[in-house]
Amino acid sequence: SLYFALANIVDGVNSAFLLLTAALVFCMQAGFAMLTVGSVRNKNAKNALVLNLCDACVGGVAYYVLGFGFAFAPINQALLTYDNFVTELPLSPIYKTKSNGFIAFQHFALAHMQSPLTKDAFTYLSGLSVPSGTNNGATLFLWWFQFTFCLTAASIVAGAICERVRVFAYIGFVSLMMGFVYPVISHAMWDVNGWLNVFYNKVTDPTTGHITGSFGIYGSAGSIDFAGSGVVHITGGAGAFVGALIIGPRIGRFDENGKIRPIPGHNISLIVLGGLLLWFGWFGFNPGSQLGVLSYADGGKVGSAVRGGFNLNGVPTVYSTAGQVALAAVNTLVLPAAAGITTLMITRFFYHCFDCASMVNGFILGTVAITSPCSTIPTYSALCCGIIGGFIWVFGDKLVQRLRIDDPLGAIAVHGFGGTWGIIIPGFFAKPDYVAMVYAPANGSGGVFYGYGKQLAAQLTEILYIWSFVCTVIGGYFLILKFLGLLRVSPEEEILGNDTSHHGGPAYPEDDVGLEEDLATLR
Amino acid sequence: SLYFALANIVDGVNSAFLLLTAALVFCMQAGFAMLTVGSVRNKNAKNALVLNLCDACVGGVAYYVLGFGFAFAPINQALLTYDNFVTELPLSPIYKTKSNGFIAFQHFALAHMQSPLTKDAFTYLSGLSVPSGTNNGATLFLWWFQFTFCLTAASIVAGAICERVRVFAYIGFVSLMMGFVYPVISHAMWDVNGWLNVFYNKVTDPTTGHITGSFGIYGSAGSIDFAGSGVVHITGGAGAFVGALIIGPRIGRFDENGKIRPIPGHNISLIVLGGLLLWFGWFGFNPGSQLGVLSYADGGKVGSAVRGGFNLNGVPTVYSTAGQVALAAVNTLVLPAAAGITTLMITRFFYHCFDCASMVNGFILGTVAITSPCSTIPTYSALCCGIIGGFIWVFGDKLVQRLRIDDPLGAIAVHGFGGTWGIIIPGFFAKPDYVAMVYAPANGSGGVFYGYGKQLAAQLTEILYIWSFVCTVIGGYFLILKFLGLLRVSPEEEILGNDTSHHGGPAYPEDDVGLEEDLATLR
Amino acid sequence: SLYFALANIVDGVNSAFLLLTAALVFCMQAGFAMLTVGSVRNKNAKNALVLNLCDACVGGVAYYVLGFGFAFAPINQALLTYDNFVTELPLSPIYKTKSNGFIAFQHFALAHMQSPLTKDAFTYLSGLSVPSGTNNGATLFLWWFQFTFCLTAASIVAGAICERVRVFAYIGFVSLMMGFVYPVISHAMWDVNGWLNVFYNKVTDPTTGHITGSFGIYGSAGSIDFAGSGVVHITGGAGAFVGALIIGPRIGRFDENGKIRPIPGHNISLIVLGGLLLWFGWFGFNPGSQLGVLSYADGGKVGSAVRGGFNLNGVPTVYSTAGQVALAAVNTLVLPAAAGITTLMITRFFYHCFDCASMVNGFILGTVAITSPCSTIPTYSALCCGIIGGFIWVFGDKLVQRLRIDDPLGAIAVHGFGGTWGIIIPGFFAKPDYVAMVYAPANGSGGVFYGYGKQLAAQLTEILYIWSFVCTVIGGYFLILKFLGLLRVSPEEEILGNDTSHHGGPAYPEDDVGLEEDLATLR
Repeated sequence: SLYFALANIVDGVNSAFLLLTAALVFCMQAGFAMLTVGSVRNKNAKNALVLNLCDACVGGVAYYVLGFGFAFAPINQALLTYDNFVTELPLSPIYKTKSNGFIAFQHFALAHMQSPLTKDAFTYLSGLSVPSGTNNGATLFLWWFQFTFCLTAASIVAGAICERVRVFAYIGFVSLMMGFVYPVISHAMWDVNGWLNVFYNKVTDPTTGHITGSFGIYGSAGSIDFAGSGVVHITGGAGAFVGALIIGPRIGRFDENGKIRPIPGHNISLIVLGGLLLWFGWFGFNPGSQLGVLSYADGGKVGSAVRGGFNLNGVPTVYSTAGQVALAAVNTLVLPAAAGITTLMITRFFYHCFDCASMVNGFILGTVAITSPCSTIPTYSALCCGIIGGFIWVFGDKLVQRLRIDDPLGAIAVHGFGGTWGIIIPGFFAKPDYVAMVYAPANGSGGVFYGYGKQLAAQLTEILYIWSFVCTVIGGYFLILKFLGLLRVSPEEEILGNDTSHHGGPAYPEDDVGLEEDLATLR
Repeated sequence: SLYFALANIVDGVNSAFLLLTAALVFCMQAGFAMLTVGSVRNKNAKNALVLNLCDACVGGVAYYVLGFGFAFAPINQALLTYDNFVTELPLSPIYKTKSNGFIAFQHFALAHMQSPLTKDAFTYLSGLSVPSGTNNGATLFLWWFQFTFCLTAASIVAGAICERVRVFAYIGFVSLMMGFVYPVISHAMWDVNGWLNVFYNKVTDPTTGHITGSFGIYGSAGSIDFAGSGVVHITGGAGAFVGALIIGPRIGRFDENGKIRPIPGHNISLIVLGGLLLWFGWFGFNPGSQLGVLSYADGGKVGSAVRGGFNLNGVPTVYSTAGQVALAAVNTLVLPAAAGITTLMITRFFYHCFDCASMVNGFILGTVAITSPCSTIPTYSALCCGIIGGFIWVFGDKLVQRLRIDDPLGAIAVHGFGGTWGIIIPGFFAKPDYVAMVYAPANGSGGVFYGYGKQLAAQLTEILYIWSFVCTVIGGYFLILKFLGLLRVSPEEEILGNDTSHHGGPAYPEDDVGLEEDLATLR
Repeated sequence: SLYFALANIVDGVNSAFLLLTAALVFCMQAGFAMLTVGSVRNKNAKNALVLNLCDACVGGVAYYVLGFGFAFAPINQALLTYDNFVTELPLSPIYKTKSNGFIAFQHFALAHMQSPLTKDAFTYLSGLSVPSGTNNGATLFLWWFQFTFCLTAASIVAGAICERVRVFAYIGFVSLMMGFVYPVISHAMWDVNGWLNVFYNKVTDPTTGHITGSFGIYGSAGSIDFAGSGVVHITGGAGAFVGALIIGPRIGRFDENGKIRPIPGHNISLIVLGGLLLWFGWFGFNPGSQLGVLSYADGGKVGSAVRGGFNLNGVPTVYSTAGQVALAAVNTLVLPAAAGITTLMITRFFYHCFDCASMVNGFILGTVAITSPCSTIPTYSALCCGIIGGFIWVFGDKLVQRLRIDDPLGAIAVHGFGGTWGIIIPGFFAKPDYVAMVYAPANGSGGVFYGYGKQLAAQLTEILYIWSFVCTVIGGYFLILKFLGLLRVSPEEEILGNDTSHHGGPAYPEDDVGLEEDLATLR
C-alpha cells in the first residue's frame, strides 16, 4: 500500500543518512590519531597510535557488550519515531523497557535488537502485515550512530595522558568510559526517559489520558545538547582533566621552579591533517544528530505532542527536517572559522607568532562549541560565539598550564572548556522558534537574550552533572591505578620513549639496517 | 496530503545529498593542505599549512558576511526548483531579488534566508498550509554547497605564492577572493539571472505571457560549466598566475642566467595523500553539482520550460536526475585516470623517470578538466580528453617555467590551463541529447563535433571573462601590496625559512631538546 | 503518476547511496597508498606510491575499456531490480545479453549503457511513457560501484611485490587483473547468470512457465559473498601470494641460513592513517553492497521469486532494505574491533611488545573477514569470528615467513587468509532467516551450526575456484615476465633504492640544496 511505501521510504532514506553521517564521525578516528601522534614526541609516536587504535577496538567491544545496554531503550525510540509514544498506544510486552531517568538495562550485546524484532516493531507500528524478509534499519543504525559518538568521547582523553600512561591502564580506562560512563551520560540526555531530555516531563489530557505535551527539567526544553558539546566533549574533556591531573606531568615539562618547558609535537603536518579530518567528520557529527532528514512528525527531533502521526489519522504525511540539518551544517562552518582566525590573530598579537598548532586547536574548539547549539542559534550568533571561542582556547590552555597540569594536546581546554562553552551558548543565544522547531517544549523556551532564564538553568545543570560524574568515576579509576602503581610507565622508560621500551623500536627507523650485508650480496 | 509528502521527500533527499557531497568537497581542504605542504621545503611547512587554514577560517567568514550576498538570490533559485519561474507566477514582495546579470546584492550574512523565510517560501510554492516547525533545507544547503566550491577556488592560489608571501597579504587575498571575486564569477554562471546562464534569455508565449523556453548567450545553453572548471579552477589558476608573476620567483629558483634549479617538495607521501583526497572529494564536487537526485521538473538541472511543475497541473510527479549524476561520477574517474597514466608515460619516455609528483598533478589536471563537461560528454570522449590532458600538464608546466614564473605546485598549469581545457571540451564534445537533458536550451545546442558552433563561442567567452576579470582584480590587489612592500617576506626570512622566522620554530623538531635535564632527574 | 514518482524516488535514493558508498571505497585508495608507503623503506617510498597510483589510473582505463564488459550484463541486472526477471517478461532485443555462467561479453567501454538506453530500459520496465530527458542512474552507478571494488582487489597486490617489481611489469599486472581476472571472478559471483549466484538455478511453475524460485550451486543460496571476502580479497591475496612467490624475497630479507631479518617500514604514522582510512572506507564497502536502501521487491538483494513487483500487480509498493544494511555496518565494526584487540594481546603475551603495525593488520584482517558474512551472521558470531581472526593474522603471517615468502605488507595473510576465513564463516555461522532475507534461496540455507551443510560446500567451492583461477592466470603472467627478465629490477637498483634508480631522487629530500647560493644572493 501507499502508507507502507512511504514508511519504507522514510526508513530507507533516514538509514542511509545515518550510515553515512556516522561514517564521517568514524573518520574522525583517523583525525584524532593524526592530531595525537603529530603532537607528541618522535619517541612516543607508536604509543600514541596504539592508544588511539585501542579506542576503536577495545571500545568497540565494550560498547557492544555493555555500553549500549546502559544507554538506550531503542525500541522505545523507534516508537517515538513513529509518534506513538505521545498518543499512548498500549505497549506490547516486548516494548517494555528496563530504564529510568539515570540509566537503562536492556540491549546488552544488542540483544532483542536484531531484525526479527525490528520487523515485529515495524509491523506493530505501521499496523500493516509485513512480508517476510522486510526489515527496519532505524534501530540498528541507532547503535552504529551512537557508537561513533561514544568513541569520540573516549578518544579525547588519550591526548592528555599519552607519552606516560601504561597501555593496560588505558585499555581499562577505555572499557570503563565506553562500557559505562559515557553511556550513562548519554542516557540522561538523549534517551526519552533521561532526566535531561525534553520528554522527561509530560502534560496529559485529563479526559483522554493522551500526552499532549512535554517539557524537561525546570520547564525548559530539557538541556539543549543537540550533538553533544556536553555528552561527548565535556565527558572527554573532564576525563582528560582528571587523567592529566592524577598521572602528573611528563618528565621535564616543568622545571624545579615550576617553569614551563615547551615540548613541541614532532610533526605539524599530521596535526593539521588531523584537525581538518576532524572538521570534515563534524559535518556528519552535527547535521547527523538530527537522526534523519524525513519524519512522520511535524517538526522536531523526536516528534512533538498533539500531532497526528503517520498511521494514526488516516493521512499519510511525511515531513522534511532538512532545515535544521542545514542550519547545523552552516553553523558548523561559521563558528569554527571565526574561532580559528581569532586564535591566529591572538597568537600573532600577543606572542608575535602565527602559531599553526594553536590555530588548529582554535578551530577544533569552535567545532566543539557549536556541537550543542548548532540547530538552535542563528548564524550571526555563531559568528560572535566563535570569536569568544578563540579567546577561550588560548587563555584556557594558559590556565591549564598555570595550574601545572600537563596536557600535551590541549584536550582539557579544547574539549572541556570548549564543551562547557558550547553548553552555555544555548542558555543565552537559543532562538525560541528554532527551539520549538527542534524540541517543541510545551511552554516554549529559549536563551537569556530572548527573555528566558529556565533554559540557562538547565544548561548549567548539565555542565555540573557531567563534570562531577566523570571526575568522580574516571578520577576514582585513575587514583586506584596510581595507588597500585599501574598507571604510569617508569621514568627510565619514559625518557627512553615508549616506542623503544614498549613497542618494539622507533616509529621512523632508518633504512641502513643491513645495508652492508645487502651490498655484500653484490660481490 | 500526498503532494505534501512527496514535496518533503524530495526536499529531504536532496538536502542529504547536498550535505554529504559538499562534505566531500570540504574534505578536499585536507587534500590541498597535504599537497601544498608536501610540495614545499621543510623550512616552510608550517607556513604552507597556515595559509591553507586561513582559506577555511578567513574565507568562511568572508563568504558568510559578504560573498554569498554578491553571488546568489537563492529564493529565486528555490522558485526555479519548484518550476514556478518558468510559468511566471506573480512573485510576492519577499521574493523580489536585487540582482542583475553581473552581480547580486542580497543575502549578506545569510539575511532573509533562515528558516522562517524558507518556511514561507515553501508554503507559497507548494500552495499548502505548512504546520509550524516545518522547514525547507534547500536554500541553506545552497549556501553550504556553494561555500565549499568558493573555498576550493581560493585554496588553489596558495600553492603558487607560498614560501614567500606574507601571511597578512594572504589573508587580504582570501578575503577579496572569497568575499567578492569568486562570488561575482559564480553569479554570472550559476545564478539564473547571470549573463552566462541558460536562463539569461527567455522565450515568451505571446498569448499567455508565460515563459516557454530559455537559452543563453549566442543562443547556446549558456556557457556549459557544470561544476566549475571555469568558475572554480580558472578563477584559482588565474589568481595563481598573477600572484606568482607579481610576487616573483623564490630565491634561487632561477640562477643569474635564468637557468632553472629544481626545488623538490619535502614529502612525496603527503603529496600523494593530498592528491588522492582531492580525487576522492571530486566525487562530491562533480556529481553533487546536480544539486539533487530528485526533481519536480522533467530532466534538467534547474528545470526547463513548458513542463508541468509539481503543484501546478494536479499531477504529483517526481523525476530522478540520477542518470546525469552517474555520468558525472563515471567521467570523473575515466578522464583523470587517462590523464594520470599519460603523464607517467610522458615523464618516462621524455625524461627517463617515473615521476610521482608529476603523475599526481597529471590526474588532478584531469579532475579539473572533467569538472565542466562531466555531465554532457560521453565516456569515450572523456578518455580522449584525458590523454590530451596529460600533455597539457607536462608541457603547460614547462611553459610556465620557461616564462620564468615560479609556481611551486604547478597550480597555474593544473588549474589555469586544465580549467581552460575543461571549458573548451564541451565546445567540441558536448553531446546534444545530454545537453538537452541537463540544460534544456530552447533551440538545442552541442559541441562542434556534433555540428554546433555557438556553444564553443559561449565557452570561449567564459574563458576570456574569467581570466581577464581575475587577473585585473586580484592582480591589482597584489600590485598594490607589492608597491607598499607588504606582499613578500624579506630575503633573510625567506632563506631562513618562514617557519623559523614567522611561525615559532621548525615544523619537525628533534626530540632531544631537554633530554639532558630529563636524564638528570633520574639520578 | 504516483507509480512514476515512487519509481523515480527509489532510483534517486539508491543512486545517491551508491555514489556515496562507492566514494568511500574509492577513499580506500588513499588508505592503501599510506599503508603501503609507510610499510616500505624510505628508499622505495616513491616507488610504492607510483604503483598505487597506477592501480587507479591504469586500472581505471582497463576496467572501463575491457573489464566491465567481461563482468556484467547490467541491463539484465536492472531488470532484476525491477523484479521482471523472475516473472519472465519477454525480453526485447536490446536486453539480450551475451553472457554465460563464466563470463560476459557485452558492455565494453560502457557501450549500450549510457542514458538513451537506460531511459529506454526505464520506459520498458515501468510500462510508463517517459518524458524526454528522464534518465535512470542505477545502471551507470553499477559501473562506478563495481569499479571501486575491482580497484581494491588490484591494490592489494602491490604491497607484496613492491620494493623490487618493475613499474612496467606492475602496469601489465594491473591491466590483466582489472581488465580480465577480477571481472571474470565477479561475474561468477555477482552477475545473475554467474555459476556461484543464487539465481543460477531456477524453479519454474510448470503451468505458467513463471520462475517461482531460485537457488545456487548444490541447492545453497549460491556462495555467500555479500561484499567480496572472496571476489575482492582472496583475489587480491592470491595475486599477492603468487606474485611474492615468483618474484622472490627482497635482498637481505633472509640470510644465507634462511634466517629472517626484520625490515621495518619507514613510517608507522602513515601505516595507521592508512589502516583507519581503510576501515572508514569499509563502511561504504560492506553496507553499500546492498546496492540500495529501497527496493521494489520484498526483502532480498536482487529480489526473490513469486513476489509481486512494483508495476505488475497494480500495487505500488516500496520496501526498505535498511535492516540488512545496518547489520552490515554494525558487524563491520564488531568483528574488526575484536580482531584488533586480539592481535594486540597476542603480540603482547607472545612477543612482549604492543606491536602497532601488527594491530593495524589485525583489524584490517577483521574487515576483510566480515566482508562476506556481514549481512548474514548475528553480531555475537561476529565477535567470536573476530577473535579467531586475530590469531589467523599473527600465525598466518608467521607461516608465510616460514615458507620464506617475503610479503612486506602481510597482504597474503591479511587478504588471502583473511578472505578465506571470511568465506568460510557463512558456511558455519550464517543464520537461516538472515540468508532468507538477503538471498531468498528456494529451499532455505544456512551455516553448519544451524543444521545445513550445502552452504559450506558452496563456500569451499568459491575458495577453491578463486585461489586456483588467480594463481593460474596471474602466476602465469608473472612467470612469463620472470622468464623474459622483465619482472624485477637489478640488485644494484634494488639496494640503491627504486626512488633514486627509477623515480628521480629520494622521497624526502633535504632543504639545504642550493642554500649556499641562496645565501650568496644576500651579500
